[in-house]
Amino acid sequence: MARQKKINEKKSDDKRQRILVGAIKVFSTKGFHGSKVSDIAREAGVADGTIYLYFKNKDDILIQLFDESLKVLLNDMRKALSEENDPLKKIRVFIRMHLDSVEKYQSLAEVMQLELRQSSKFMKEHTPKRFTEYLNIISDIIRRGQETEIIRKDMHPAMMKRAIFGAMDEIALGWVLSKQRKRRTYELAECADKLADIFLAGLTLPKQGS
Amino acid sequence: MARQKKINEKKSDDKRQRILVGAIKVFSTKGFHGSKVSDIAREAGVADGTIYLYFKNKDDILIQLFDESLKVLLNDMRKALSEENDPLKKIRVFIRMHLDSVEKYQSLAEVMQLELRQSSKFMKEHTPKRFTEYLNIISDIIRRGQETEIIRKDMHPAMMKRAIFGAMDEIALGWVLSKQRKRRTYELAECADKLADIFLAGLTLPKQGS
Repeated sequence: MARQKKINEKKSDDKRQRILVGAIKVFSTKGFHGSKVSDIAREAGVADGTIYLYFKNKDDILIQLFDESLKVLLNDMRKALSEENDPLKKIRVFIRMHLDSVEKYQSLAEVMQLELRQSSKFMKEHTPKRFTEYLNIISDIIRRGQETEIIRKDMHPAMMKRAIFGAMDEIALGWVLSKQRKRRTYELAECADKLADIFLAGLTLPKQGS
Repeated sequence: MARQKKINEKKSDDKRQRILVGAIKVFSTKGFHGSKVSDIAREAGVADGTIYLYFKNKDDILIQLFDESLKVLLNDMRKALSEENDPLKKIRVFIRMHLDSVEKYQSLAEVMQLELRQSSKFMKEHTPKRFTEYLNIISDIIRRGQETEIIRKDMHPAMMKRAIFGAMDEIALGWVLSKQRKRRTYELAECADKLADIFLAGLTLPKQGS
């Protein structure tokens, strides 16, 4: 019985996963508003009704897609950061991994950049707890760097987490848009290192140029 | 006749302006989706029908609000920048003026941050030409600074305009959200200078911390 239950759970997980993967493809091709639940069902190779065993509606698919992607990214990020001690190297790792993941999961990044931020239902009703956790990784690194006197103490951690995330996110948006227009203006891997250079220089150096 | 026409035009401009100012107040209080055209008419002190003499619908009010605000900001920005020659100082001026305007026009900034980016109709159908112009001011400064060998040549202007705008925009969003939650975490004027410090340090200094 227990074994059967486990097998059923595994099968169920597979189906749910297939629906999520199908949703990424459909959303990134047709846009969120242009996609139907039946398109996702076809892409995932399941019956339309099956989707409603796992998800309330199309919005719910988007919300769970965001949540699970962030869960995976959070785990990967924490693992990679635990291998570094230096706060400055941690910041470089964070920026690299974030932009790497945009490049690695292009279709998902498209959905996040172009669809998610336009789903007002999502933005208003769903408190993105994991997103807050993700941003707070940055402010925790900054705080730690200030305690050990590696990072300038006058750089507010809450401001810095927004500055670093905002810069990465807008670079990712520009990259996604340039792909859609079929002319790439910059490569993400290169950007990651340049952006890290900028923040590390700014976080460690005395004021200048004013 | 000509004089009468001028007077009529002026009156008409006033009404249009009153509707836009009323819209800022209504959108920032009730949210875009929660606002009705009649709420805006009441706030502006005009008849409901008058609104449709100037605007197609609620979406159109938001679009024109965005466009005109950006027009004013573009003019002010260009004027302020023309008074500086040094590319590094120009970047500091840009960041200061952008965040100053968020602080100065708080209600408008709320509408922009919380409503505009969630209006999928807006984001998809309206090509924000002035927004592109605004971003390109940054890349032009970077390019000029590279030509005069003040700014590191390996910092891609298209990347840098996104990095600087993204950092400012996300800081503005954090500030707007923290106001709504009634606990301010940082002040924008201070942020502007710190953020400028960071970008100036990064744009002028050799790679380090890697």
